[in-house]
Amino acid sequence: MTSYAAPVTDTLFVLREIVGLGRNQPLPGFEEATPDLTAAILEEAGRFAAEVFHPLNQSGDRQGCTRHEDGAVTTPTGFKEAYNLFREAGWGGLSANPEFGGQGLPHTLAAAVNEYLSSANMAFAMYPGLTSGAIAAIEAHGQPEQKALYLPHMIDGRWTGTMNLTEPQCGTDLGLLRTKAVPQADGSYKISGQKIFISAGEHDLSENIVHLVLARIEGAPSGVKGISLFIAPKFLPDETGAATVRNNLSCGAIEEKMGIHANATCVMNYDGATGWLLGEAHKGLKAMFTMMNEARLGVGVQGLAIGEIAYQNGANYARERLQGRALSGAAAPDKPADPLIVHPDVRRMLMTARAFNEAGRALILYTASQADIAHHSPDEKVKQAANDWLGLMTPVIKGVLTDKGLESAVMAQQVLGGHGYIAEWGMEQFVRDARIAQIYEGANGVQALDLVGRKLALDGGRAISAFFAEVGKFCEENRADPALSVYTKGLKKGLGDLQQATLWLMQNAVTRPDNAGAASTDYMHLLGLVALGYMSARMAKAGAEGLAQGGNDTSFLNNKLVTARFFMDRLMPETAAHLARIVSGADSMMALEADAF
Amino acid sequence: MTSYAAPVTDTLFVLREIVGLGRNQPLPGFEEATPDLTAAILEEAGRFAAEVFHPLNQSGDRQGCTRHEDGAVTTPTGFKEAYNLFREAGWGGLSANPEFGGQGLPHTLAAAVNEYLSSANMAFAMYPGLTSGAIAAIEAHGQPEQKALYLPHMIDGRWTGTMNLTEPQCGTDLGLLRTKAVPQADGSYKISGQKIFISAGEHDLSENIVHLVLARIEGAPSGVKGISLFIAPKFLPDETGAATVRNNLSCGAIEEKMGIHANATCVMNYDGATGWLLGEAHKGLKAMFTMMNEARLGVGVQGLAIGEIAYQNGANYARERLQGRALSGAAAPDKPADPLIVHPDVRRMLMTARAFNEAGRALILYTASQADIAHHSPDEKVKQAANDWLGLMTPVIKGVLTDKGLESAVMAQQVLGGHGYIAEWGMEQFVRDARIAQIYEGANGVQALDLVGRKLALDGGRAISAFFAEVGKFCEENRADPALSVYTKGLKKGLGDLQQATLWLMQNAVTRPDNAGAASTDYMHLLGLVALGYMSARMAKAGAEGLAQGGNDTSFLNNKLVTARFFMDRLMPETAAHLARIVSGADSMMALEADAF
Repeated sequence: MTSYAAPVTDTLFVLREIVGLGRNQPLPGFEEATPDLTAAILEEAGRFAAEVFHPLNQSGDRQGCTRHEDGAVTTPTGFKEAYNLFREAGWGGLSANPEFGGQGLPHTLAAAVNEYLSSANMAFAMYPGLTSGAIAAIEAHGQPEQKALYLPHMIDGRWTGTMNLTEPQCGTDLGLLRTKAVPQADGSYKISGQKIFISAGEHDLSENIVHLVLARIEGAPSGVKGISLFIAPKFLPDETGAATVRNNLSCGAIEEKMGIHANATCVMNYDGATGWLLGEAHKGLKAMFTMMNEARLGVGVQGLAIGEIAYQNGANYARERLQGRALSGAAAPDKPADPLIVHPDVRRMLMTARAFNEAGRALILYTASQADIAHHSPDEKVKQAANDWLGLMTPVIKGVLTDKGLESAVMAQQVLGGHGYIAEWGMEQFVRDARIAQIYEGANGVQALDLVGRKLALDGGRAISAFFAEVGKFCEENRADPALSVYTKGLKKGLGDLQQATLWLMQNAVTRPDNAGAASTDYMHLLGLVALGYMSARMAKAGAEGLAQGGNDTSFLNNKLVTARFFMDRLMPETAAHLARIVSGADSMMALEADAF
Repeated sequence: MTSYAAPVTDTLFVLREIVGLGRNQPLPGFEEATPDLTAAILEEAGRFAAEVFHPLNQSGDRQGCTRHEDGAVTTPTGFKEAYNLFREAGWGGLSANPEFGGQGLPHTLAAAVNEYLSSANMAFAMYPGLTSGAIAAIEAHGQPEQKALYLPHMIDGRWTGTMNLTEPQCGTDLGLLRTKAVPQADGSYKISGQKIFISAGEHDLSENIVHLVLARIEGAPSGVKGISLFIAPKFLPDETGAATVRNNLSCGAIEEKMGIHANATCVMNYDGATGWLLGEAHKGLKAMFTMMNEARLGVGVQGLAIGEIAYQNGANYARERLQGRALSGAAAPDKPADPLIVHPDVRRMLMTARAFNEAGRALILYTASQADIAHHSPDEKVKQAANDWLGLMTPVIKGVLTDKGLESAVMAQQVLGGHGYIAEWGMEQFVRDARIAQIYEGANGVQALDLVGRKLALDGGRAISAFFAEVGKFCEENRADPALSVYTKGLKKGLGDLQQATLWLMQNAVTRPDNAGAASTDYMHLLGLVALGYMSARMAKAGAEGLAQGGNDTSFLNNKLVTARFFMDRLMPETAAHLARIVSGADSMMALEADAF
């Protein structure tokens, strides 16, 4: 009963106005991605997402995955056919290295396409999503022969990938990891142990599944410094690349979960499985983080993606459902009641979701473009600035956009009233699916600690200082413009709160680390609001400029101004509450004895 | 895998310190409910909830209800036996009228027991919960012979009750109601139409089901003024009260829902069913509101109830699960890692849930005691004040405590990381179950409009003025006390924001009603925070007094002070954000064209 239409116009607006595609000089790495090609790819990706992935979203949720007695796993009806279409269309290799068969287009474009696919069917999009992360890790850390052996198959999509980190006794704290790797005479390792929560761990979509597995080499030091990363494929490839010998690893069970039922979340048993070291021994965590950082941005995209499709379906219902009368007098006096959209509180929920979606899309695509710049720019200073932005914003995008994704899904569900609670309407699935994004790839509290405990202080606070300077400059340059002052005023207030919070942390967190921990989630959301508000204000500026130039998309541009105004009116005021919480410190949070809880 | 322990100590603290049980003169209606009897009842109710209801919570969710071809509905395994135990113990008649077999104890006590039962098994507790509402409506509006015929069976629990309001085309807007009632020669009516979302509409727990049905008498005016309320039992009782003749009504389907799977949510078809008018013709809506107001408080209790059990299970996990090290240095150096509870961000989530639970419990029980006072007090002024509080706080308790219930369930689930997403751990069920409480009995946006559009202005704003005076007086009386000033300071700031928001509404909502609609949800939460903060501060005062008097429950009392401090530090600052949003008005919320969404 749900529907989906990819927001291609909005993506193109962001690429043009915020990322700068087609403006000034071409961005490094974007040389091939002309505005016309980009538009054509996005249109086609949107159509594919809506027509191939989305029709399987509710049926996939209802049916789920099935594990058979031999450990094989079947995906829901229609998934295999749709995956083949996906593979044949080459969507999986969009931004992959042409050396191994990829199309070499910008990551920014892949992020946009990933949003569409995740909106249409998040559980499905995870299969190729995890493969992308594994590709990135192998490309960054693999030996040339490993790359040659695995990457072409994975980029082509005939093989998929996974990440194997979690064990029953260890989630966030990977130092507790027990899976063992015993060196063999031929240079391989025998891996033994149990991994849990392995997304796409076993399924019937691909010919082979390439597991990247964290394990401890026999005799390695304890803690995180003794962890190595291994490649352990389901089928062992021979020298010709043909994979026929079954490895000693298997899916022991599929977890029953709240949502993403169509993705097989597996218990994976490694019983002396053959694996090969990926990257250096004992430096597996670092190698895994290549994958994690990419995955974290991907999870932020999922937050946006669910927020977007939930918004669309909430808005459709609100326009059509007749119930009650407008407070200002009947809007449709010829009908038995007015459509829900006349009610301010219904709009409050939809506008909130919309404002976060549009700003979130801009923040994601702009950040993805910084990844492209960091990869491709010949200018070391530009590269450094791009890397700084990327490091600072990765936890924010993961943590804030997934929290907002759940909130948007809950609000859009609320628009449907009782129908929102009924499975066939599909809104409750969005809530259930969105919920995992706050948890996996590092729970959002871990993102917040990464931000406050690590990213803020890196290089003497260079990244956050650059952010302050950039946003401050924007406010300064535009505050005198009467069309923009309403945005710069709200943004400047938010920025001020963020700067105060940062100063407080500098003064209070070193002497008492719990003050940092107690502040972390609020700080992450405070930075998120300012970053999203900045994107919002930049879009308003572009909208105002477009209107002044007499653009023919007047209503689209006007709506950008309204949505940014709503952001300043209704969303930005939260920064003050975050600041107040942060400066209250850790006292009342830490005072109870553990057994008083 | 979940567990539950009723918070009897906390309930008794609230009854003693906030409601005033056992202090000063006995409250009217509480004469029988001595502190000792109250404690004994609560202990037994807690045991019953934990031992009889709770073990069926996860199994009931998994199994759900089954509709058979003949329209009969089977509840999950064990429910019928547990319901019989519930009935035999007399829990359903705790606060019911002794004239019809009830025990005549205060509603306040029933609300406390209802919290325990709803924590333990919300879907189960709904069966007797709906019966209570139907009892209240029949008692308030029934003819003497109707009361005599129905109430003893319903209070005894052999018969249960339902509310039938919603139809496919009408939810909130009952003016669109189409179900018809045709008068018969014998004074009965033939009712025809379809009702949807009927909780406990059909099941196997009771001998008979008494449906209260809103319908339009043939020829009645359109809109809400032409609606009447009818009693239409599943089996028609003869003059002896024996119910053997099947009425022409049936369950057409059970809805598949996000949660509360163990409660049968039915499509009910009335095919010329026999019904009798309850109350006056065309005044059905008013009669239904008797039931609705009671039901709304009951739904607020569900929000608290899920918040409480989710908190308990999150806290249990946080104390036991070893993961990572405290920021301030290892807390359990002899173990491979520290328990989660050392991490400030884990505490942030648990303390937030805890602070809302404790303040919510106080607000609910205090408000329920105002209902008892309104029923029983011989003093008209006292009665009026109690009714004012009740009217003002009913939408706040329904809307705010159910929103907080979801948030608490989400936070407690987050504490478990990936395990929180897995069905067997039970945390995700709390989220799914909690979600309905924000929707049914009037979606929370409708509660907010009831508050801002109706309750605020009633009797010249008498209720809100009295609230301002009461909270202001508390702040004034206690601000000089060094042990209490931290609480009065936070509370006074919140009260100030609330007063400013109220003034803004007075000045801006009459001229432009959309300003009221745009403010409504923020205003409801702002009032909720101040009311909960007031409860919190009163508990802190009672805690400080208890400590000064050398009470022997030192740690319990100390924890009250800490939790109230956390409320002021971390939760109350949100009032400023609500105020800022309210005074931004309706402009940016209403500016988009409907088809721009």
